[in-house]
Amino acid sequence: MGRTTVALGLDFGTESVRALLIDTEGTQRGIGQADYAHGQIVDRLPDSDAYLPERYALQAPGDWIDSAADAIAAAMREAGLPAEAIVGIGVDFTSCTMLPTRADGTPLCCLEPFQKTPLAWPKLWKHHGALEQTEHMNAVARQRDESFLNRYGGTIGLEWFFPKMLETIDHAPLVAEAAEVWLEAGDWFVWQLVGGPAESLTRSTCQAGYKAMWSSTEGYPSQEYFAAVNLRLAEAVANRLPGVMRAPGESAGGLSAAMAERFGLVAGTPVSTAIIDAHAAVPGVGAAEPGALVMVLGTSSCHMLNAAELREVPGVAGVVEGGILPGLFGYETGQAAVGDAFAWLRRLLGLDSFDTLAAEAMQLPPGAEGVRCLDWMNGCRTPLMDGSLRGRFAGLGLNHGPAHLYLALMEASAFGLRWIVELLRDHGVPINRVIATGGLPHHNRAFVEVYADVLNTDIEVHPSSQGPATGAAVLGMIAAGPQATGFATVADAAAAMADVPAADRDVLHPRSERAAAYDDLYAEYRRWADDVVKS
Amino acid sequence: MGRTTVALGLDFGTESVRALLIDTEGTQRGIGQADYAHGQIVDRLPDSDAYLPERYALQAPGDWIDSAADAIAAAMREAGLPAEAIVGIGVDFTSCTMLPTRADGTPLCCLEPFQKTPLAWPKLWKHHGALEQTEHMNAVARQRDESFLNRYGGTIGLEWFFPKMLETIDHAPLVAEAAEVWLEAGDWFVWQLVGGPAESLTRSTCQAGYKAMWSSTEGYPSQEYFAAVNLRLAEAVANRLPGVMRAPGESAGGLSAAMAERFGLVAGTPVSTAIIDAHAAVPGVGAAEPGALVMVLGTSSCHMLNAAELREVPGVAGVVEGGILPGLFGYETGQAAVGDAFAWLRRLLGLDSFDTLAAEAMQLPPGAEGVRCLDWMNGCRTPLMDGSLRGRFAGLGLNHGPAHLYLALMEASAFGLRWIVELLRDHGVPINRVIATGGLPHHNRAFVEVYADVLNTDIEVHPSSQGPATGAAVLGMIAAGPQATGFATVADAAAAMADVPAADRDVLHPRSERAAAYDDLYAEYRRWADDVVKS
Repeated sequence: MGRTTVALGLDFGTESVRALLIDTEGTQRGIGQADYAHGQIVDRLPDSDAYLPERYALQAPGDWIDSAADAIAAAMREAGLPAEAIVGIGVDFTSCTMLPTRADGTPLCCLEPFQKTPLAWPKLWKHHGALEQTEHMNAVARQRDESFLNRYGGTIGLEWFFPKMLETIDHAPLVAEAAEVWLEAGDWFVWQLVGGPAESLTRSTCQAGYKAMWSSTEGYPSQEYFAAVNLRLAEAVANRLPGVMRAPGESAGGLSAAMAERFGLVAGTPVSTAIIDAHAAVPGVGAAEPGALVMVLGTSSCHMLNAAELREVPGVAGVVEGGILPGLFGYETGQAAVGDAFAWLRRLLGLDSFDTLAAEAMQLPPGAEGVRCLDWMNGCRTPLMDGSLRGRFAGLGLNHGPAHLYLALMEASAFGLRWIVELLRDHGVPINRVIATGGLPHHNRAFVEVYADVLNTDIEVHPSSQGPATGAAVLGMIAAGPQATGFATVADAAAAMADVPAADRDVLHPRSERAAAYDDLYAEYRRWADDVVKS
Repeated sequence: MGRTTVALGLDFGTESVRALLIDTEGTQRGIGQADYAHGQIVDRLPDSDAYLPERYALQAPGDWIDSAADAIAAAMREAGLPAEAIVGIGVDFTSCTMLPTRADGTPLCCLEPFQKTPLAWPKLWKHHGALEQTEHMNAVARQRDESFLNRYGGTIGLEWFFPKMLETIDHAPLVAEAAEVWLEAGDWFVWQLVGGPAESLTRSTCQAGYKAMWSSTEGYPSQEYFAAVNLRLAEAVANRLPGVMRAPGESAGGLSAAMAERFGLVAGTPVSTAIIDAHAAVPGVGAAEPGALVMVLGTSSCHMLNAAELREVPGVAGVVEGGILPGLFGYETGQAAVGDAFAWLRRLLGLDSFDTLAAEAMQLPPGAEGVRCLDWMNGCRTPLMDGSLRGRFAGLGLNHGPAHLYLALMEASAFGLRWIVELLRDHGVPINRVIATGGLPHHNRAFVEVYADVLNTDIEVHPSSQGPATGAAVLGMIAAGPQATGFATVADAAAAMADVPAADRDVLHPRSERAAAYDDLYAEYRRWADDVVKS
């Protein structure tokens, strides 16, 4: 074909958005990135002097639009292609990041009466204000022996959709009263792109399946369950969750004229249903086969795995049929603080970077000369599903310095990963290949080496630091339909646009003498973790 | 009297020596300080490329002589007094800091064949190389139900005299073979000052009582016990510990002509028997009455207490009759890392000082917003007597910063002190007054405030940062005899030379609302410490 065909992937992270233009051969044609003007809102609301409660993490919806416009413009400038070359748009988003809006899509926090009310603002995935609500919802679900729990390792997560709704109902009833639509930020952004009434907005089966206890066969949990939790929550679930469920890659509609104008794109361009950022990395690294564990390593980490069969694994956050790729069961696990924990330690130690410390840490023997760590600075996601747990260091002596703490933290992160891998394998879910993606492996290779040693397995580092954005572009390409692109399935598009030939892969191999030492240290870690949880 | 009468106190610490000239009225006339050229030798021996094993901490005996000369010269310059004004010399020294010498007093590490042998060098109090030996000596003592254990809380300490001897016998047999005299560094320095043959060298009942399991009624442990531990140790105890036991304040002899020349002093000046540095602080702050807890807060901390009666308290390192002051039972307790732990954390956090962090830490509520610490970075002295324990932090979240860790460390130190105080009181040893001295309270007042809050008691900060040096000078004055000074007893001299009138005392008062919160936090700390020790 003489005409270049590209898809636009928009990847909304915790601090910034990336716009990626990628063609049908997998060549990156342009990229742009823009930070959110307000970043994570954790101290004070914009234009406010009042401090937010501890554990709050909010965002500003205007930031998503503004930064997307900047990122798209930068990508288009680099690509030097006409807007007509873009055949489809895909969107991935952190999750569960969610917000209340009016029926026309206006976020409540943008309305004057609610601008100073923190719970009217979008709650970022890492917002941990719903501790009580999560405990209550879990207690009621267990008492009623709700079968949906089995799909989520037996526990509703602190960061999920309904606890965040209930938190607002409990603590900001006027906001809950005014909320005509509750929805995921990814679904909200897609709705903004395509327009239309609330009744026909597209909700992603990915976000709904992993964060809102929805399944293709059972839908949301029952009204009886929600009523037993809270009558106003039951009413809201019944009346304030309008929309139509669609899978990632299905078209949510064409780009509206207003948004085409705002972003300099072409009205009517097909827009894919949203996907969670981490999950987008699976097509984004070309790993469309069962048994490939895709680790998205960033602020937190999500480990995605497709399998041909459904297994119920205690502590695994979600198993959703077709949640990542059609026809496979998608298993989602995760670690609550990875890049966040490294950044926290870096700040604590008064360092600007880990560059010099990493070399020093990697010279230390496995076990950091006695220093031990539990990296639960933001709780433990898989398998303990407990956001209230906190981090620890032990074995500290006067001879230990920053490098010891850094190695111990990397080892804790690796032990947490090994726990997840062993749990899945022990329950009959095969893992044959491990691929690392996300921003972190490119900034910081040392900890991926520690992961390889602790897992005693090869780890491929995918060359793109834009796995989720690539996955979003793959989905945008699919939404455009086979006539426009030649791709019939997500797997076809992923293979063409994102896979790396085996000979060219960047593989970190475990070092056998370190791997042997880590068997004992891992056993010690598991005993310690058990003791801490019991105490 | 027209003629000024002063005593010279020499205070040998971990990093440096101080020389203090103080007159009979308690006026400081001159002071000098000099760092040891080699400091603590923890990485490599002087002129050597070989790294020392972990847990080693050595010193160079030449440093003690050279730095004492410099410090004395500085003090004499400031005083502007003739050498004849000095009527007596007192020496306090860290303990158990000990070394092997030839019969003429030459340290083995100064002889060519042993210069590269680490165990020929003086082992500093904090040298922790004798872990196995300590365990073995304790096991044999318990098996034989040795009564001496009762005076030491049931446990021989890792830092004590005989474990350090046995370590050398085990690991450097040629050094042990060549050692004709084993002795405390304080006793060695006094021997250097007065000269004479090994048979008549003066050993301090203080060092021997607290660090070498000696008592006035029973002497050292029996030959049967030592033979059960190790035959070569028994032989060395029988033949290689020459000397005469004397109490601090008793004269060990007159300054030799050679040393008078070296230090610019007068030959024949009476030299007191040595005392442990921490114990010297008791006369040094004028606290000569039973029930006054004198806390010497420095690198580590020693808490000294006199009582009229003997109580056996599990975990208390030593109870020695007349060990601090004549006619009273001296109780020694301690915390293994105080200033050392603060300095370690300061370095870890990349800070030059705690000045700004202290203010921020003191603004935090008790409990450091969830951060908890066990300050066992150098083991736990009282009451656990376990040098192999290590430090911990728990409760760490992404919201925590350096100030949280600093407050948690101060609180851990204070909880450790409260444990000691409650243990003594629970066993019938009265504590009516708490006095802080040593270098640390003057650099860092914040942690003494935390101590007052956690103990819920007033703490007096003694104005002199030279408590031990003052105590040494008091003992030097006593060694000179009543005819030269007018003082008949240590208590008389201490009162005149070191006490602060009640109206002038610098007292930190507990803040009641914080003290109340600390009751619960202390109970939590005790449960945690118990759990850790059990695990």
